[in-house]
Amino acid sequence: MKGFAMLGLNKVGWVEKECPVAGPLDAIVRPLAISPCTSDIHTVWEGAIGDRHNLILGHEGVGEVVEVGSLVKDFKPGDKVIIPAITPDWQAVASQRGFSQHSNGMLNGWKFSNSKDGLMAEFFHVNEADGNMALLPKEISPEEGTMLSDMVPTGFHGANNAEIEYGDTVAVIGIGPVGLMAVAGSNLRGAARILAVGSRPKCIEVAKFYGATDIVNYKDGDIVEQIKDLVGGEGVDKVIIAGGNVDTFEQAIKIIRPGGIISNINYLGTGDYIKIPRVGWGLGMGHIRVIGGLMPGGRKNMEYLARLIKYGKLDVKPLLTHRFKGFEHTEEALLLMKDKPRDLIKPVVTV
Amino acid sequence: MKGFAMLGLNKVGWVEKECPVAGPLDAIVRPLAISPCTSDIHTVWEGAIGDRHNLILGHEGVGEVVEVGSLVKDFKPGDKVIIPAITPDWQAVASQRGFSQHSNGMLNGWKFSNSKDGLMAEFFHVNEADGNMALLPKEISPEEGTMLSDMVPTGFHGANNAEIEYGDTVAVIGIGPVGLMAVAGSNLRGAARILAVGSRPKCIEVAKFYGATDIVNYKDGDIVEQIKDLVGGEGVDKVIIAGGNVDTFEQAIKIIRPGGIISNINYLGTGDYIKIPRVGWGLGMGHIRVIGGLMPGGRKNMEYLARLIKYGKLDVKPLLTHRFKGFEHTEEALLLMKDKPRDLIKPVVTV
Amino acid sequence: MKGFAMLGLNKVGWVEKECPVAGPLDAIVRPLAISPCTSDIHTVWEGAIGDRHNLILGHEGVGEVVEVGSLVKDFKPGDKVIIPAITPDWQAVASQRGFSQHSNGMLNGWKFSNSKDGLMAEFFHVNEADGNMALLPKEISPEEGTMLSDMVPTGFHGANNAEIEYGDTVAVIGIGPVGLMAVAGSNLRGAARILAVGSRPKCIEVAKFYGATDIVNYKDGDIVEQIKDLVGGEGVDKVIIAGGNVDTFEQAIKIIRPGGIISNINYLGTGDYIKIPRVGWGLGMGHIRVIGGLMPGGRKNMEYLARLIKYGKLDVKPLLTHRFKGFEHTEEALLLMKDKPRDLIKPVVTV
Amino acid sequence: MKGFAMLGLNKVGWVEKECPVAGPLDAIVRPLAISPCTSDIHTVWEGAIGDRHNLILGHEGVGEVVEVGSLVKDFKPGDKVIIPAITPDWQAVASQRGFSQHSNGMLNGWKFSNSKDGLMAEFFHVNEADGNMALLPKEISPEEGTMLSDMVPTGFHGANNAEIEYGDTVAVIGIGPVGLMAVAGSNLRGAARILAVGSRPKCIEVAKFYGATDIVNYKDGDIVEQIKDLVGGEGVDKVIIAGGNVDTFEQAIKIIRPGGIISNINYLGTGDYIKIPRVGWGLGMGHIRVIGGLMPGGRKNMEYLARLIKYGKLDVKPLLTHRFKGFEHTEEALLLMKDKPRDLIKPVVTV
Repeated sequence: MKGFAMLGLNKVGWVEKECPVAGPLDAIVRPLAISPCTSDIHTVWEGAIGDRHNLILGHEGVGEVVEVGSLVKDFKPGDKVIIPAITPDWQAVASQRGFSQHSNGMLNGWKFSNSKDGLMAEFFHVNEADGNMALLPKEISPEEGTMLSDMVPTGFHGANNAEIEYGDTVAVIGIGPVGLMAVAGSNLRGAARILAVGSRPKCIEVAKFYGATDIVNYKDGDIVEQIKDLVGGEGVDKVIIAGGNVDTFEQAIKIIRPGGIISNINYLGTGDYIKIPRVGWGLGMGHIRVIGGLMPGGRKNMEYLARLIKYGKLDVKPLLTHRFKGFEHTEEALLLMKDKPRDLIKPVVTV
Repeated sequence: MKGFAMLGLNKVGWVEKECPVAGPLDAIVRPLAISPCTSDIHTVWEGAIGDRHNLILGHEGVGEVVEVGSLVKDFKPGDKVIIPAITPDWQAVASQRGFSQHSNGMLNGWKFSNSKDGLMAEFFHVNEADGNMALLPKEISPEEGTMLSDMVPTGFHGANNAEIEYGDTVAVIGIGPVGLMAVAGSNLRGAARILAVGSRPKCIEVAKFYGATDIVNYKDGDIVEQIKDLVGGEGVDKVIIAGGNVDTFEQAIKIIRPGGIISNINYLGTGDYIKIPRVGWGLGMGHIRVIGGLMPGGRKNMEYLARLIKYGKLDVKPLLTHRFKGFEHTEEALLLMKDKPRDLIKPVVTV
Repeated sequence: MKGFAMLGLNKVGWVEKECPVAGPLDAIVRPLAISPCTSDIHTVWEGAIGDRHNLILGHEGVGEVVEVGSLVKDFKPGDKVIIPAITPDWQAVASQRGFSQHSNGMLNGWKFSNSKDGLMAEFFHVNEADGNMALLPKEISPEEGTMLSDMVPTGFHGANNAEIEYGDTVAVIGIGPVGLMAVAGSNLRGAARILAVGSRPKCIEVAKFYGATDIVNYKDGDIVEQIKDLVGGEGVDKVIIAGGNVDTFEQAIKIIRPGGIISNINYLGTGDYIKIPRVGWGLGMGHIRVIGGLMPGGRKNMEYLARLIKYGKLDVKPLLTHRFKGFEHTEEALLLMKDKPRDLIKPVVTV
Repeated sequence: MKGFAMLGLNKVGWVEKECPVAGPLDAIVRPLAISPCTSDIHTVWEGAIGDRHNLILGHEGVGEVVEVGSLVKDFKPGDKVIIPAITPDWQAVASQRGFSQHSNGMLNGWKFSNSKDGLMAEFFHVNEADGNMALLPKEISPEEGTMLSDMVPTGFHGANNAEIEYGDTVAVIGIGPVGLMAVAGSNLRGAARILAVGSRPKCIEVAKFYGATDIVNYKDGDIVEQIKDLVGGEGVDKVIIAGGNVDTFEQAIKIIRPGGIISNINYLGTGDYIKIPRVGWGLGMGHIRVIGGLMPGGRKNMEYLARLIKYGKLDVKPLLTHRFKGFEHTEEALLLMKDKPRDLIKPVVTV
């Protein structure tokens, strides 16, 4: 079969591979729609997960089941399914403890385009299919469904970890697609005031659509000062970090109130340390929690998040700025994520 | 001063009383807008809290501060303030434990028109003013502000206690004003599908406005059967009870999944027992939690909920179906709550 | 192979059956030590789960792995393992939601001696072995290990669901083996005062060993009055129900404070309704949570609870009042649970 | 009246001051027993809270009420009371939000020997007496009672914030008196294995008394390596930091598993940044929560923790290594905390 792969550092291209084989618990799926992710860029051009050879890329997509293993009970060939970027091992102790993302090792729930071939292929393999796929509701198009693999669950996980309460003031730093979903997720948890930190006009427009009440543009000056001016003395209740780098945490501490939560969903690709200012952190006693987490994958999460689209509570279409028809456009779509034109949020390829 | 009072069981009327006096921590406030509550009806015509004589009614309102005690730091005469229906004693052990509603005894946070005179008077008294009043944001009219005293916090408390998660299916039983706010609160916590159980066309219309996706009308047959038909096998994730009576819990058990939560915010005025069916409750082992709670009062809750209106996340105007100008219309407004015309949700009187 | 079975209602005896077969994820285990449970008595002599024919009994035990399926990674023949009474399907949506006990249906995590043959056999079958067995630490004898299958996790689940906080006053109603483990579990969560409700001298002695500070004997009068006398006005913080029947909840409501939690771990075998007194429940607004739940099974829970024994924090030996050597004593041990001699807590059979 | 004060940086001595005066909500108390704290040393000799002149020291003690304000309801002269180090403003929004420590500003619940005179005086002042004092149970001596002001609640807060679960492996870094109480608090939350990091023989002995199962001595080599050797691959579940400095967090990250919690209760007196290693923190996605918090003060916390001593669940006597009789020994006792003899845990002065 054909697949679009990382050939090595800084190199991508089409490869020919054997079709994957399903074990008793697994499924083989062919993609219906896929979306490239910034992580793919990190992987290839920043070597974020190390050098890999002929690793098929892609971890966001919707597909059609082609084959299921002998122990798969809930799916059959022909089913249209949502594939989460994270596909845990459900029997693992970490999964039983509530951290399936880290089943059998830190971040090991992330398998596609990391420890095995991803979705940009004629066929791909899903481990523990009953636990890791969800039927695509007929109300949701495959293109929209791709946003459920990673963008929606990652952004919403950021809002969940921030333990947003009714009326909270939330700052979302970074409004690429994940940050935009953090805005939407904050809005759907009851945040009142949502300060979105970003600069691209398209992203600002979509942030407002998802519920941002204030836009903070770093081109207009220091974001800490701007946010302090906007919210006054005490600071914001919660900060979701969906962009920036290891230094962004210092800004977050400066704008948050005692008892607040800083929730990171940004893949931190470089830097030795996240630095928490001692004084701003209340000399270690200010009850400012710092948490960062990979999105939870699995079927339950896909099913529940899909319902938000199905019942009209969440519209992901504004994320899909660039649409392609045909598997052969995969490379073009991927390179968009690398080049980031001003009007890009997410490209999607219908296969 | 004049006040509109419960004269005795089944009797209301105007009374003349001494003006209340502020202790060091308290405030005296004159009402700007007030809204009668079904609880006032329970109090007078059902004797729900026992017989009372010349007790001034009313616990929902917005007012202007007239006088503050010597220890009040954050408010001054002339301030426009939201008054919560529940005004706890903040030093009490129960408050420190997170249950300020029950400070110094079960339900003792509820003082207005219960253990002391209420808001339907020329002046009323607020205990622990710094902890129990909130400035009315200028973006919110006094009429709208009255909905923050009880309707919004009660409905939202129901959603909070139901621990709604993204994508949940929630049934809200009863769509009077409190139930409608439970619908809105569920919607703002991330529920996907919201089944609103009610029959009055006006309430149905407003329930849809607040996010109900399905309407279940008991006039169309057994609500348990209807809901089972709608959601299929496993049942709903959460039930909020905002109407009905002690028997409603049996219906709730029949429609909820294992691990679900039944959250009551209905004032249960009659009946000896709430009955939980043993088998439906998993022989005592089904992890179906049953919780019922009085809304939390106090300043923090008012400030945070007010922000939802201020920043456009919640619009309470659809609740205000009947508007009166002039304190003298208090009786008329109150009797509306007793007679419940078909198009009534809440009356409000601007003083 | 031989097994000791429920032959039909009110009848037990030895049966000859085919040896169980392991699927790819499963294990076949031979028992090293088993303990009969009161549930076995409910099953046979009260028909609690309906009529069953030739169903092998037993769900508490420690065994040696004889065979593992092709996909089992963490266990091999010869391993000594703890078997939890509850062996969930870990890929199920309910498991991903945190309610593995109810994977694929309410209470469906309970398979042994319910929907399939139990442990009182020469060999038994464990589904999803990697997720449902735990290595028996060498510091723990097989006899002690049997208490980890059901008694320890059930009692401790009661304490967990009661959300015990440092210094809480906890009433544990019923001090059979599960209630005793609820006492121990409360003690290990930081309860200060633990009121144990029971009457048998042996149980009282062991309750004190596990941390009970007060004994309440129903033979000395109404337990509600006794507890009120002991704790004074406000009531206890938490109640764990580990005995009694559907009417015990009314007693629990009468002794608990607003904001308290009633946590049931008692298998409720008869009665139509659990009845919650309306007034005592604060007219539906007293924040008294009522929760009842089947113990969580699975490997993580076994491993973590086993550590408590291994590191000397929990001693289960006082539970093991009657010890038998030889598989042939199974019936004798089981009948002890039926006859309940005064000095019995739990019998254990070393195979 | 006389008081023992910080005269200025690096200088202490006796001062003569006016007796404090009680406002309507306050109490005036004379000390029965007091204990100096390491924080007093930080304050005087490290200038941790800046320069202060004639500030009376001390925030741990038990006293007798001398006078109460007109609005105090629950206390009267002659009552023996526990005084928490932290005495919040209970009406404040932060208190209503659950962070009374930060009422009216970060760390502002800490008033004694910080923003007002402390307990090392003939008389001292307690704000909001009903909310901030607790009766000393007659089963607890004043000397023991002093440990409830700060040592017990701080150590136990560390364990609470670590969200310890049954069977957890917990590392407690630092076993001065606060660390020892973190060990005891972990033990009383159900930790199985408790690794205590320290070196002084007296502290090691007492750590074992409180439940430490393993001692890690930095004099025996790198503590990270030692702990990894002890617990094997995955790491500990939780870390409580009760000693060290801003660099200790890096060690904590290196020994904790994904999904773990690092709970700081150490007053971080120097250093610009707490540094969290990016890779060890899972590139921002490892779900390792970092939290640090000042102990909660107030009456409820004192009452509940006192019950643990009253009912025999916690014995604080092993902390009291140095006992003095007579107020005049205050300086001697304080200097012990500065000089830290090998056999010191806490000195206490009976007045």
